[in-house]
Amino acid sequence: MTTIDEIAALDRADPLAAFRSEFVLPEGMVYLDGNSLGAASRAALAAVEKAAREEWANSLIASWNDAGWFTLPSRLGDRLGRLIGAGAGETVVCDTVSINIFKAMEAALNLRPGRRVIVAEASSFPTDLYMLEGVRSRHPDLRIRLEGVDAPRLEDLLDTEVAAVLVNHVDYRTGALRDMAALTRQIHEVGALAVWDLCHSAGALPVDLNGAGADLAIGCSYKYINGGPGAPAFVFAASRHVAQLKQPLSGWWAHARPFAFDLGFEADPGIRRMLCGTQPILSMRSLEGAMSVWDRVDLAELRRKSLALTGLFIDLVEERCAGHGLELATPRDPALRGSQVSFLHEGGYAVVQELIARGVVGDFRRPNLMRFGFAPLYLSYRDVWNAAEALRQVLDEGSWRSRNAEAGGAVT
Amino acid sequence: MTTIDEIAALDRADPLAAFRSEFVLPEGMVYLDGNSLGAASRAALAAVEKAAREEWANSLIASWNDAGWFTLPSRLGDRLGRLIGAGAGETVVCDTVSINIFKAMEAALNLRPGRRVIVAEASSFPTDLYMLEGVRSRHPDLRIRLEGVDAPRLEDLLDTEVAAVLVNHVDYRTGALRDMAALTRQIHEVGALAVWDLCHSAGALPVDLNGAGADLAIGCSYKYINGGPGAPAFVFAASRHVAQLKQPLSGWWAHARPFAFDLGFEADPGIRRMLCGTQPILSMRSLEGAMSVWDRVDLAELRRKSLALTGLFIDLVEERCAGHGLELATPRDPALRGSQVSFLHEGGYAVVQELIARGVVGDFRRPNLMRFGFAPLYLSYRDVWNAAEALRQVLDEGSWRSRNAEAGGAVT
Repeated sequence: MTTIDEIAALDRADPLAAFRSEFVLPEGMVYLDGNSLGAASRAALAAVEKAAREEWANSLIASWNDAGWFTLPSRLGDRLGRLIGAGAGETVVCDTVSINIFKAMEAALNLRPGRRVIVAEASSFPTDLYMLEGVRSRHPDLRIRLEGVDAPRLEDLLDTEVAAVLVNHVDYRTGALRDMAALTRQIHEVGALAVWDLCHSAGALPVDLNGAGADLAIGCSYKYINGGPGAPAFVFAASRHVAQLKQPLSGWWAHARPFAFDLGFEADPGIRRMLCGTQPILSMRSLEGAMSVWDRVDLAELRRKSLALTGLFIDLVEERCAGHGLELATPRDPALRGSQVSFLHEGGYAVVQELIARGVVGDFRRPNLMRFGFAPLYLSYRDVWNAAEALRQVLDEGSWRSRNAEAGGAVT
Repeated sequence: MTTIDEIAALDRADPLAAFRSEFVLPEGMVYLDGNSLGAASRAALAAVEKAAREEWANSLIASWNDAGWFTLPSRLGDRLGRLIGAGAGETVVCDTVSINIFKAMEAALNLRPGRRVIVAEASSFPTDLYMLEGVRSRHPDLRIRLEGVDAPRLEDLLDTEVAAVLVNHVDYRTGALRDMAALTRQIHEVGALAVWDLCHSAGALPVDLNGAGADLAIGCSYKYINGGPGAPAFVFAASRHVAQLKQPLSGWWAHARPFAFDLGFEADPGIRRMLCGTQPILSMRSLEGAMSVWDRVDLAELRRKSLALTGLFIDLVEERCAGHGLELATPRDPALRGSQVSFLHEGGYAVVQELIARGVVGDFRRPNLMRFGFAPLYLSYRDVWNAAEALRQVLDEGSWRSRNAEAGGAVT
């Protein structure tokens, strides 16, 4: 059994402990939903206010050049690149995950003319699949094969008809982590392209896109990266593909000479060809503030602490909540999980509500999944102890049963 | 000749004068670039800070529901609807102008199956044309006819092959205003759809999309609407079309049940089907702050003052700068102009730089166009007087000639 003294010792020895003071979090809250919306750093808040009051209100139009607004997508992309194993000139920050999926998949189809199958996962966050439907609406001969529908394993859907595979690095429900290098290799063996969705891995663990030979990637910045609510997403393309990328959202920010106001479109020679229109600067600045924290984070330390936190949570919960019908949905093997722990429980919705009422914020996914995200920059081992203890109390007291009845199953 | 006493009398009688105090502008600056980036209202700045510090930092994930983040696109769309003559449920605020052009044109093509021509203007802001190229890349049989290339007048390009016309309400270079009702009628006569680009008219004058029978429209919120740098754009569809709209950027925010996480896409029955992915909340809140100013603006008064300001500027400049080679590029007839005055001048670039150095901020477009935008909410008649006087001084002193030589033609 783990003791509170051991927990205190873990916190004293934590090399990332000092980052906690750089974040604003409500007093007493254990925030385990950073996998959904990351916490605010003081740097992000300050960056937003400076952008609004100084750059916009006082400098107005001059800020497009003087404050570097126009170059933010590529500058932030390069900076974010360290978190995902990208080199300079391979990443831009822009638009939304959904829109970047569209661009990336269209670009992938253009890189593999004649191939007319896309492989994806039925277990994907749905917008990935909805965007693939949108892509298909313009390519009548395109077929989509789904892991979980057309075969149990994605690997079994690969053949030489496949143009590209859109695959999540970390599953948003279970927190299961794919082996990026191995799967990319298998995808390449049939001549297809690997397009990685990093929404639940960027900022949660070291990602090595180039080490794995990935072709394209997309992801969001508002979860583990802490860019702020709805902060712009990113899109990556390996340098070997950049000059050939072609995507139909060819707005003026993707033009080789955006201020020449040419009549015809000519794509930027670099990664900016994945841009489209004018970006939301206040939200971009918020992300830039968040990146000023990330610049100082050792990603190996991040991973060590992440696995220690999630491992501790699994152990504490299983120690204390035995017999309450919890079922671990996350891989027990540390090498196979991201920075999230999920449990199945028949009263999942009500239990999460009871936890929130006690200041432990996780979230719920139908029909019976409780998700707890562990952001190593602002969580302590003591937080994990407190969260497990709150879960024990909720389950022991059984008050979730009446709450579940109240909710009447009308869970949204 | 207009006298300074007459100017003072105009300011005293201005029913919109009180709005000036709601905006933050640098002391002594005459800001005539609100047609490019609108000024910051105190309400917008406060809304951004509240969203960052309270909603994000303190309430975190709960704000998606409790603070109404998720419904911002439709709530802001309805609110903005008054400025453009839209009814409830016809407008959403989201994404960028470029992306909304793509959605609107794809939706228009879906509404007119079998028709394979789009008409647009060579004089359009280029992103409109670049996005049409993107649309065409997915429809190999699609043809684009351009006013200014294929015929001098857009009206001459209309026939029964035309699916849709993408047309600017106000020209971004000259400030010329189209007759929306008349042109929409002509477009409908051949069975085509009218898609209006309102970037330079929304917030500059009363727009009446429904009065004109417009089919679709797009526009930005960071110019005259003062939503902030890169604030989200909007897209409108007439209620008669909403249930039939189909566009390929079908992300989860456009789903009928976004939180059911269905495997397949089913479009929202309403205008939210024009959404795609997660929106930048801080930038959305900035726009919401700006809208709290607009809610109190009488649009007829706005138009009256706008025409008085632009008319006065034309008169004063022509009185004082005669013989300096200025050529008015904006229609002299008030019924034919937006809220902008443009002059052609051989030293346009240098003259604009000299004006900026004197605190009068306009902008320059190659090869020789000086643009001055007049935002009636924060400009006074005295500002117009001062701007015309500054222009006279610059031209009389002739210092722009040496600056032009310095610049060596390397204008970007």
